[in-house]
Amino acid sequence: MSESHRAPTSAGVLDAARQLAGVAVRTPLIEHPALNARVGGRVLLKAECFQWAGSFKFRGAWNRISRLSPEEKRRGVVAYSSGNHAQGVAAAARLAGTHALIVMPHDCPAVKVAGVRQHGGEVRFYDRWCESREAIGAQIAAERGCVLVPPFDDPHVIEGQGTVGLELVDQAGGAHIDQLLCGASGGGLLAGIHLALEHHGLSPETYAVEPEGFDDHALSLRQGTITAHAPEPRPSICDALMAPQPGNLTFSVNGPRLTDAVSVGDHEVRNAIRYAASTLKLIVEPGGAVSLAALLSGRVDAAGRITAVIVSGGNIDPALLAEILREETP
Amino acid sequence: MSESHRAPTSAGVLDAARQLAGVAVRTPLIEHPALNARVGGRVLLKAECFQWAGSFKFRGAWNRISRLSPEEKRRGVVAYSSGNHAQGVAAAARLAGTHALIVMPHDCPAVKVAGVRQHGGEVRFYDRWCESREAIGAQIAAERGCVLVPPFDDPHVIEGQGTVGLELVDQAGGAHIDQLLCGASGGGLLAGIHLALEHHGLSPETYAVEPEGFDDHALSLRQGTITAHAPEPRPSICDALMAPQPGNLTFSVNGPRLTDAVSVGDHEVRNAIRYAASTLKLIVEPGGAVSLAALLSGRVDAAGRITAVIVSGGNIDPALLAEILREETP
Repeated sequence: MSESHRAPTSAGVLDAARQLAGVAVRTPLIEHPALNARVGGRVLLKAECFQWAGSFKFRGAWNRISRLSPEEKRRGVVAYSSGNHAQGVAAAARLAGTHALIVMPHDCPAVKVAGVRQHGGEVRFYDRWCESREAIGAQIAAERGCVLVPPFDDPHVIEGQGTVGLELVDQAGGAHIDQLLCGASGGGLLAGIHLALEHHGLSPETYAVEPEGFDDHALSLRQGTITAHAPEPRPSICDALMAPQPGNLTFSVNGPRLTDAVSVGDHEVRNAIRYAASTLKLIVEPGGAVSLAALLSGRVDAAGRITAVIVSGGNIDPALLAEILREETP
Repeated sequence: MSESHRAPTSAGVLDAARQLAGVAVRTPLIEHPALNARVGGRVLLKAECFQWAGSFKFRGAWNRISRLSPEEKRRGVVAYSSGNHAQGVAAAARLAGTHALIVMPHDCPAVKVAGVRQHGGEVRFYDRWCESREAIGAQIAAERGCVLVPPFDDPHVIEGQGTVGLELVDQAGGAHIDQLLCGASGGGLLAGIHLALEHHGLSPETYAVEPEGFDDHALSLRQGTITAHAPEPRPSICDALMAPQPGNLTFSVNGPRLTDAVSVGDHEVRNAIRYAASTLKLIVEPGGAVSLAALLSGRVDAAGRITAVIVSGGNIDPALLAEILREETP
């Protein structure tokens, strides 16, 4: 079994924490009295919008890229991504002194393309609906002889994301977390967090939160095996959460551990973004807001409980945020 | 000397920290790699936008109101404020089980009036340009026999705000803070922070940051005595920082300790708000952004230094934030 197909482990998450120390941002865990009052319980928000390049993705990217050999660094890395992994890889590559080529869908938010370029990354566009990003990425990796950094189905990437969970437990300061809500696309962040919780012997209820129509975790849990969502769902505002199905490595961790998966609609996501801005003073992107949306819309009941909510990113196009700020809550 | 005219002390700040424990939010200290890279130094942002009612003002209000006698609580409190003290007092009063009447300028942001009402406060409007809020507040206090909670010139209020400084030092984890930037209106937050720093034997350079035209701290430092700014300056976007002159208690603390005072224009404040939103993912109101504006515009040089920046509040009208988000950086 090659290194890139070994199963991710709790020990790997601890090792990732050492690798990320002093480089990644230890993002704050925020508890807001107004939110507590609204749900009638305690809510602990892990705010990854404050991470390097605006989302948790930097963690996994750094944990993978910083371990490359000098020869590998000379040849550079390639990644495919709807935007946040792209920016995380670009930022990590620059810090590690290597080059990043990013394969991005042509319809991803302009702010994410700009973010990649700002971090020194090279961008190659593809068509989300008729080209395969995996194929393009693999082809470039072969042509250039460079390392592919997958967005989620890689043990170092998963273990890097898991440091979110280690910090969360530490910052919660002994509070007993009853349940945890986390957005899911490929499931890398969730898998890493599950391993971190396991290291601490904790097993709160965990919920994968997905955009309506992109409910591949819900389907996979129900089927008991990895299952793709319907091929052409209505487009979602959550550009960061559009993977067709859970990963092999990620679902082997998440499948047995998830309590359930729930879906939220665009309208609920917009309400959550507006609530985060107006009450919590946090800027959250659509894909980063699904867990908060599930909480606020009551999809998961938080009354009388301690709920950890992962706010996974903040890379929202300013024009979209401005539009949402002008909307009225229904 | 009555209790409300005694000088605030470092011991009082420590006492306030005990009074606020478990009630006020211990707001995060945020360090962002992009901001560090931009200024070429380390920047530690104390994010009071995450405080109860959206600004540091809750701290001083709670430290004053929670100490009222049962008889005083029965009669309620009155406060005058351009908005943040108003919301802080309303939130603290409700928590303490008493009633708050707030005297607010009729032209203050709608979001702040709504905030006061949401926290159960009663609002009485006045005209900022032709009525005296001090006189109105004193009259109501006399009529109703209720306690006036001043916005800054009160030892308990100053000591409550000083808990920002205690947390900052603790969260900086031994990092040597070279300089500190803090917005100033009446100077209560700055005075409290000065006392907190003194408790720790720290004396970084400290800068009061004011909106252009509302430069009463700069004038007072230059004159060596409390001096009001020019009577009719051009209106500022910083609705929270429009006090005509420093307070007696606050300036007796700040005058001998401030390194200097600097001013920032509306344009710089708007840029800082946009930068905070797009890069830091933080929602900051104009008055809360002046210290960041002074940093970003280079009014205070941060290269090679560790700079603490107090982001004092986040109560910005959504429509104004939307407008600023749509602007281009020059």
